[in-house]
Amino acid sequence: MIQSPLHSIRIVLVQPLGPLNLGAIARVMKNMGLKHLYLVNPQCDPLGPEARQMAVHAADILESARVVHSLPQALQGCQRAIATTGKPRTLAATLEPPGRILPWLLEADQENSAALLFGPEDRGLDNTELNYAQRFLSIPTSSAYPSLNLAQAVGICCYELYQLAQREDYPHSPPASVHPMPPSHAPASLDILEGYYQHLEALLLQIGYLYPHTANRRMQKFRRLLSRALPSREEVALLRGMVSQVEWAMRQAQPPQEETPHNRPEN
Amino acid sequence: MIQSPLHSIRIVLVQPLGPLNLGAIARVMKNMGLKHLYLVNPQCDPLGPEARQMAVHAADILESARVVHSLPQALQGCQRAIATTGKPRTLAATLEPPGRILPWLLEADQENSAALLFGPEDRGLDNTELNYAQRFLSIPTSSAYPSLNLAQAVGICCYELYQLAQREDYPHSPPASVHPMPPSHAPASLDILEGYYQHLEALLLQIGYLYPHTANRRMQKFRRLLSRALPSREEVALLRGMVSQVEWAMRQAQPPQEETPHNRPEN
Repeated sequence: MIQSPLHSIRIVLVQPLGPLNLGAIARVMKNMGLKHLYLVNPQCDPLGPEARQMAVHAADILESARVVHSLPQALQGCQRAIATTGKPRTLAATLEPPGRILPWLLEADQENSAALLFGPEDRGLDNTELNYAQRFLSIPTSSAYPSLNLAQAVGICCYELYQLAQREDYPHSPPASVHPMPPSHAPASLDILEGYYQHLEALLLQIGYLYPHTANRRMQKFRRLLSRALPSREEVALLRGMVSQVEWAMRQAQPPQEETPHNRPEN
Repeated sequence: MIQSPLHSIRIVLVQPLGPLNLGAIARVMKNMGLKHLYLVNPQCDPLGPEARQMAVHAADILESARVVHSLPQALQGCQRAIATTGKPRTLAATLEPPGRILPWLLEADQENSAALLFGPEDRGLDNTELNYAQRFLSIPTSSAYPSLNLAQAVGICCYELYQLAQREDYPHSPPASVHPMPPSHAPASLDILEGYYQHLEALLLQIGYLYPHTANRRMQKFRRLLSRALPSREEVALLRGMVSQVEWAMRQAQPPQEETPHNRPEN
């Protein structure tokens, strides 16, 4: 049970560059009732004078921020993750505006279990980083100058989250983003899902379905597909069991005298 | 006649103190399709290096900003004015949130004829200044730290204006898809999907993951999971390619002398 649906949210900043932005983000988070901040390899001092100056009365958010070394670390314990992106790139996924996608994040019913990801100021999240998320948020902007300042982007999302959480009937009314086919169980945490992906990828490389230079793109398609289904913990165990069993069956069999990976079937 | 309803809006900053804020405001205005900026007795240089640094590609907004000496001057030619305030003070007027009050500003039908007023960073608009406005906007915030940074407050209002204007600009655009995460392609036909399930089931029986008497129930769980994702034809081909490749890898390997299906790993 959590005090406020806003406490289910963690804001994750990947390699933030600017201390002024960090301070401004801490301030607007506190303004909007959010408290969990994660910093992945920050490129500036989150407790230095510039960050504190911009945070004003929100230095406590900076002081309690968790600094981690990788994005998977920042997502430990999360069940839902939304990545923010400014550009469509080659992303084969739907980009959704804040008002439509953020109710889904607030539906998480455990403290600190739903992540909202932001990339570095100069490049945004890259494709590998985007792959850790299940859904993708893009703030609509003018084509004359589409690129938002990082702190403004975080501020707009925090504002939308606060507005949504303030709704009197929240969370008893059906949320705006009702999934048409909701999974019967809670979704598996992202680290469990990640463990499965890694395991599957290793197998697919071993049997020659993936090659190192194509692995990322193919796995990305598979991740997108599975993300849409929001698999439960039990379902991930089922999938992982299949991988383990294929490995077992391969071990039982004698390896061929010489491997001929180019002789593989079409796929 | 105006090009965009957003061009009816002017942003008026009374005695702004911080050049970083000025630059950030210019940037978010341009991000959100706004262009008219008025500065009443600015306490810093709107064209100095700090403001330009934060404006990035929105220096044109700073350069075309009009600097005036009084609030009445900044309101010349306006038909509508909304003042922003953080505190109820002694104001005997209703405070309205952005989403409710800003449509009224966009109804102004002449270029640069509707003003949105913001006070200085340290004190906000005083009662005399508030009196120039017809209506009053307050952004809802947490009581733990209600005071927003000026640039964030302007950014949130610009974001709301842009959202509203997009709606008015495109009243006939197709409604948002019902499915929150529509696959990029049409879902695969059911016979294609069924072909995959049969293929996978045969493999899983062969490698001892399924037994004939448990196959139906386990496969049903897997079908449920995949059904939720509505896989496309291309995605089913990807999945089926994995099954084919496992079969190929198994054929390459010598079958074991005797099968020991009871010696399989847990799953």
